[in-house]
Amino acid sequence: MKVEIHKQDLIGPINTVQKAISGRTPLPILEGIYFKAENNQITLMGTDGEISIQTKVAAKVLEEGEIVLGSRLFGDIIRKLPSATIYLTLTEHNLNIRCQQSEFNIMGQPTQEFPQMPEIVDSVKIQLSRESLVDSLRSTSFAVSLDDLRMALTGVLFDCKPGKMSFVALDGYRMALNEMEIQSDAEIQAIVPARACTEIVRLLDESLDSILIELASNYIKIDLGSTIFVSKLINGEFFQYQGLVRNDHKINVKLKRQDFVQGLERANLLAKEERSNLVKLDISANEILIESHSDIGDVHELIPCSTEGDGLKIAFNSKYLLEGVKAIQEEEIICHFIDSVNPCIIESSEKSGYIYLVLPVRLAGQ
Amino acid sequence: MKVEIHKQDLIGPINTVQKAISGRTPLPILEGIYFKAENNQITLMGTDGEISIQTKVAAKVLEEGEIVLGSRLFGDIIRKLPSATIYLTLTEHNLNIRCQQSEFNIMGQPTQEFPQMPEIVDSVKIQLSRESLVDSLRSTSFAVSLDDLRMALTGVLFDCKPGKMSFVALDGYRMALNEMEIQSDAEIQAIVPARACTEIVRLLDESLDSILIELASNYIKIDLGSTIFVSKLINGEFFQYQGLVRNDHKINVKLKRQDFVQGLERANLLAKEERSNLVKLDISANEILIESHSDIGDVHELIPCSTEGDGLKIAFNSKYLLEGVKAIQEEEIICHFIDSVNPCIIESSEKSGYIYLVLPVRLAGQ
Repeated sequence: MKVEIHKQDLIGPINTVQKAISGRTPLPILEGIYFKAENNQITLMGTDGEISIQTKVAAKVLEEGEIVLGSRLFGDIIRKLPSATIYLTLTEHNLNIRCQQSEFNIMGQPTQEFPQMPEIVDSVKIQLSRESLVDSLRSTSFAVSLDDLRMALTGVLFDCKPGKMSFVALDGYRMALNEMEIQSDAEIQAIVPARACTEIVRLLDESLDSILIELASNYIKIDLGSTIFVSKLINGEFFQYQGLVRNDHKINVKLKRQDFVQGLERANLLAKEERSNLVKLDISANEILIESHSDIGDVHELIPCSTEGDGLKIAFNSKYLLEGVKAIQEEEIICHFIDSVNPCIIESSEKSGYIYLVLPVRLAGQ
Repeated sequence: MKVEIHKQDLIGPINTVQKAISGRTPLPILEGIYFKAENNQITLMGTDGEISIQTKVAAKVLEEGEIVLGSRLFGDIIRKLPSATIYLTLTEHNLNIRCQQSEFNIMGQPTQEFPQMPEIVDSVKIQLSRESLVDSLRSTSFAVSLDDLRMALTGVLFDCKPGKMSFVALDGYRMALNEMEIQSDAEIQAIVPARACTEIVRLLDESLDSILIELASNYIKIDLGSTIFVSKLINGEFFQYQGLVRNDHKINVKLKRQDFVQGLERANLLAKEERSNLVKLDISANEILIESHSDIGDVHELIPCSTEGDGLKIAFNSKYLLEGVKAIQEEEIICHFIDSVNPCIIESSEKSGYIYLVLPVRLAGQ
């Protein structure tokens, strides 16, 4: 293998595939970057066995070849080289790297043991805007369960029905749900691991406006042109989430999102001192009183609001409530209540599609 | 106690005294901030038992009083409050904090057990420019010993002689020394702990141009006007460092600092894979060849230079060499050698006062 490429053209692809590589892998070969040169193109690939990222970049290929290179060392060397043309020459398993007055020789590993990109067959294809996909994953993935005994709930459900797509995450205490219309008649459910969702969001930061998602029985594939992302899906049954959302709310409270976030963040300073993270809300016609008590002290916050329906006293885990309010982007939110024991539903007053459902904490005596 | 102060006026002083407070202290009272209001002024103080920082800020004091407040919680509350006037009222040990629609009550502790600022008596006073003190500490303190069995070497020596002040750190492998002329006839040696040096540099970031240092037998005090910093000194004998610097160099190599740093950083990528961090220099008339080998590969770097004297092959721990070269600010440096077993001395070619001495690694067969 003999390749010439400018340092600046190689840095980006290395950063991209390193997103898939885990520092802690039981298989040493997975600490490597797969590197292949042919047809005036370099193909790089990284994987942790679950997530795989492949990317291609144009280069001057004088002689074809392939090798697996230690990811950290190879990445550090390329990053530290001067901003100039890099000459890569592979002889057996030794890669010679030259750039101006620097020369490295590093040992690679044969490529036979390196896993190939998974083949996706019988997939359903869905086209989404970059913004919709990023918003959906950001506003739901934080609500996945961390409990490995309920594996299906540790991922985000991609639920496709004709004309509609839903992203759902829930952990038994709260649910985040984002729905949107799509132009597709496909019907498929796929549970995407939380880490894959995080990496998708990071990858999309620098990509096209329209994203092609492919869902198959075991894999999700996202094609970004020169970069392809594939993740295994989580097997198992997701929770029947549709029944959770009721529409018989009796109390609707409209308030400024930012006021609520700041009041809850301050109340949380004391709530988090105790295990329960407990905050109590006392909702009346024009204001919400947020209170929290701990051994060290107490806090009282008054937030202006406009309430339809009766007053209500209700308690929450401040972390779960706060994360949902923060997930909404718009300025004004509405909180819907039935009573002090049924879930609260929070949504934007301006934009539909996203709802966050959070269970109250039952207080002694209720 | 009854005090009114704007949030923005209280944040800075809290950040300042929190620099002295350690998260891990065996004495719970030291997790607190001492808070006192009198004469239209708030005095805050934090200490970890070694370092103490006291700062004062103007405030509207309606009633005097003092209390010790949990540092993390009090700091977090003030930081999260709206940017407006804060009303603080102390009743017994309960501090009521009000700001717009927020109200906190937190339990404080009585101030009796909180250590007072140490009294400095019989001190020697030295005036230095902020820049000299920061440069001296930055360019030496990284070279202190980490070995608690050689306690005296874990700090930076402040060595005052009539007309001259030296800052010295050494660990048995290298020495960093910064000397300057001062207008003082004082003669005193003080070993300042490395952590105190770090905190002094952080404190000085936002301070006056001329700094008053007081050295006494057990303490160093730095007076920054509204803020006072005091640290205990390390007891013990420092190394007789003056004899280490020889002047009978036979080889003098002039080169660009940045070239040397980048070449060494790249060589270090392979050197650090092995315990010894070994890099070899092959110095000739016009260039230095830097080489390093490890199980994974090797690296060769060519750096242009201009050499007086014979060629030389010499080896170093790359970390020690690199830290010294990086500590120099100027563009061009000179490295002085006697032979491959005596220390190398590195200094700026433009500015005198700072020298860095580093021992070579003896290779088998020398």
